[in-house]
Amino acid sequence: MNSQGVTPQSEDYARWYNDVVLKADLAEYAPTPGCMIIKPYGYELWEGIQDALNRRFKETGHRNAYFPLLIPMSFIQKEADHVEGFAPQLAVVTHGGGKELEEPLVIRPTSETIIGHSFAQWIHSYQDLPLLINQWANVVRWEMRPRLFLRTREFLWQEGHTAHATEAEAIEETMRILDIYADVAANEAAIPVVKGRKSNQEKFAGAEASYSIEGMMGNKWALQSGTSHHLGQNFAKAFEIKYLSKENKLEYCWTTSWGVSTRMVGAIIMAHGDDKGLRLPPRLAPIQVVIVAIFKNESEKETVLAAVHRLRDLLAAAGVRVHVDAREGMTPGFKFNDWEMRGVPLRMEVGPRDLAQGTVLLSRRDLPGKEGKEPVPVDGLVPVVERRLAEIQAGLLERATQLRDANLHEARSLAELGEIVADGWALVSHCGTAECEAKIQEESKASSRCFPLDLNEEWYPKGKTCAICGKPAQGLAYFARAY
Amino acid sequence: MNSQGVTPQSEDYARWYNDVVLKADLAEYAPTPGCMIIKPYGYELWEGIQDALNRRFKETGHRNAYFPLLIPMSFIQKEADHVEGFAPQLAVVTHGGGKELEEPLVIRPTSETIIGHSFAQWIHSYQDLPLLINQWANVVRWEMRPRLFLRTREFLWQEGHTAHATEAEAIEETMRILDIYADVAANEAAIPVVKGRKSNQEKFAGAEASYSIEGMMGNKWALQSGTSHHLGQNFAKAFEIKYLSKENKLEYCWTTSWGVSTRMVGAIIMAHGDDKGLRLPPRLAPIQVVIVAIFKNESEKETVLAAVHRLRDLLAAAGVRVHVDAREGMTPGFKFNDWEMRGVPLRMEVGPRDLAQGTVLLSRRDLPGKEGKEPVPVDGLVPVVERRLAEIQAGLLERATQLRDANLHEARSLAELGEIVADGWALVSHCGTAECEAKIQEESKASSRCFPLDLNEEWYPKGKTCAICGKPAQGLAYFARAY
Repeated sequence: MNSQGVTPQSEDYARWYNDVVLKADLAEYAPTPGCMIIKPYGYELWEGIQDALNRRFKETGHRNAYFPLLIPMSFIQKEADHVEGFAPQLAVVTHGGGKELEEPLVIRPTSETIIGHSFAQWIHSYQDLPLLINQWANVVRWEMRPRLFLRTREFLWQEGHTAHATEAEAIEETMRILDIYADVAANEAAIPVVKGRKSNQEKFAGAEASYSIEGMMGNKWALQSGTSHHLGQNFAKAFEIKYLSKENKLEYCWTTSWGVSTRMVGAIIMAHGDDKGLRLPPRLAPIQVVIVAIFKNESEKETVLAAVHRLRDLLAAAGVRVHVDAREGMTPGFKFNDWEMRGVPLRMEVGPRDLAQGTVLLSRRDLPGKEGKEPVPVDGLVPVVERRLAEIQAGLLERATQLRDANLHEARSLAELGEIVADGWALVSHCGTAECEAKIQEESKASSRCFPLDLNEEWYPKGKTCAICGKPAQGLAYFARAY
Repeated sequence: MNSQGVTPQSEDYARWYNDVVLKADLAEYAPTPGCMIIKPYGYELWEGIQDALNRRFKETGHRNAYFPLLIPMSFIQKEADHVEGFAPQLAVVTHGGGKELEEPLVIRPTSETIIGHSFAQWIHSYQDLPLLINQWANVVRWEMRPRLFLRTREFLWQEGHTAHATEAEAIEETMRILDIYADVAANEAAIPVVKGRKSNQEKFAGAEASYSIEGMMGNKWALQSGTSHHLGQNFAKAFEIKYLSKENKLEYCWTTSWGVSTRMVGAIIMAHGDDKGLRLPPRLAPIQVVIVAIFKNESEKETVLAAVHRLRDLLAAAGVRVHVDAREGMTPGFKFNDWEMRGVPLRMEVGPRDLAQGTVLLSRRDLPGKEGKEPVPVDGLVPVVERRLAEIQAGLLERATQLRDANLHEARSLAELGEIVADGWALVSHCGTAECEAKIQEESKASSRCFPLDLNEEWYPKGKTCAICGKPAQGLAYFARAY
């Protein structure tokens, strides 16, 4: 354990993760079984993700709305695959206002059904299409093995729901959103995800095709960090979502749904964290620069704090998220370790000696020891801070990309796959069947992550066979240990 | 009914309200009994309220967090008044993951209990205080007479929860938030609310004292639009929220809670709406300026639309929320009525004749007919639009203030009170007892709104008596019909 009480990754990655979430004050388990409390620092990270997604959703014509938390049981049952997929995970309200309800209500595990019902009322003609709706909401799925941010019985997410006149437009929307998710992951969270199609077994209950972004975590496991589903006409038929075409014919719509959840916070922790704790990408970091004042006596304190507040105002005015650590009764060294553990990208030390020289000392979280330290003249401070933040953002993405690319290996047999997924992702020519997936899972504990889009321009390459079972291949698939 | 299908206020105020909510696409009833769907236009209004509140909460040191939706039944039962107040309104989850739960979970009707439990873990010493937390969340209360935005079984709100070392600090916080609510109401929503203390009967279940902002609606009814509670040590004692003081003594904290909900959208509708529909305050209006293009043929269309898009970009670049109505197959007159009904503050007509003269025609939603119309040179458009929006904002507040001030009357008897509350608010020297409140309610259907702070500097003016029952008065109270 380091001085902040964080277990080293090499010793126990799962404990390292838990330590970081708890010690950095991101979240904790709630007294409600399987649920979490998102603490302010964790919630601010989520707010950053929300802003990044909201901006992109609105730019592409989506509007936010809000649908009920409670869904009549009969709605869930209207789409056969959907109810089969979600029934085991439902939380059920049986009593309200002191009485037993006539029809039980389920807490939404996702909202295709109740939103589908509204779409059927709202859509009349082709002029009402496309209908592009997003909702920020909490959902409940009765998970049996909860893990903070990764898998809790309640979580926060956005769920987009859209309806289109043609299948081509629905597919285009599905892909547009997948691209937005990959863009937010790469350019805000600094996580270079793989975009791909989920296997039939892994797709959303009720979808024609599901796509995901998959990120590689520090222990080489995969984390599905966002999904985009082409729902075909499955929900349109279950909920009678129809429109009158230009040719005056009544047609079923084509719908999509897509979501990113508070799981993304877990992805950021595991993609970038190290033995010292978190390393937050500057674009999402709640605090980008922390200022630690250094002084030995009251007269030094006064001078230093006056300078600190001036510098804070200067940075804040430039749009930098800056925090002054004014805690008393702690050594600077303790504070340095504490902020490193919390992943703040830049630390600024301000002491009397620095000030006498007209400088402050900047330390980068992403570069160890002297390499990351530099005295910066107070005069030109803002542009240097902005440049360093941009460099850290780019550096985290670059390092995560190198980690990923160095740990993708092609497997030509089950034995090879097993070796690879012990410390990486295996790319396999794969049949995509449930039997073969189950066999791989059993032998290696790895699951099918996706058929990556960039390696599968044609879904059914002729003549290729599955490297595991020898049947005709669907394409190249990644297999990995996964959360 | 007007051309948009809105019942006149004078004919039936309740139907007018419902018509406006539905026709302006703000919200509608959901298939889940008693619940609503907030449609994009209504949700955008709520997002404006959220931004206005969030900004002020953060400026005053509050941080957002998130606590579980589901609360163990035993938690709700820990504070005696609290459980008595909320038990009849609870929705109860009895089954999860296909099994009956060992302990039923209630969907939060409010979160004092589960947040109190966390505060007890988080707070150790005086250095941890004040603890200033806010949560944006959905809550469920099993209302029997639902009304869109005003009273639905699920609603969205923010709930603030804070803990302090002293009673004085808790009271100061309670009042700081009440001031923030009144500020948002007046300066964002253009509603001049009355700040006051609720009577003992009307206070929050578990509070020492509750304060509210009360707005006067167009029909002179009152709408409680935000509440701020001083909780004393009631929840601190129920949940063992203690801190070690500077003097090294273990003391109970003093806590507060406070909330504004989607009800505020209802307040905006009723405070400003007229027979034509909504009138939205520009600071919160999702669309501040709507541009309607006027043309008779294809060649006019091309010129006009090119100009329209230029003007839209110009306004958007200046930070104005602008929308181009590009719908086809509708007359300009239909569009004018439609946007008036939706309450957009400014309409801009752009036609070939205007353009030939280098002008556009601006129409204000708040001024009828010719009075609100003016041709504006395209060259100086932005500052004129900004000035008009500011004038409309100020004008709505002024009109609402006049309405309120003209309809506050002092009542010296129950008979006078009855006459006044038929079309206004009655100010009464009042004992504050349950018996007297019940009597007034029975005779006049009016309820106690609050003891207004500005008229009650001392809570128990000596020698004053209740105008209704003759017992010693607690102070001056407003009574009104209320939602």
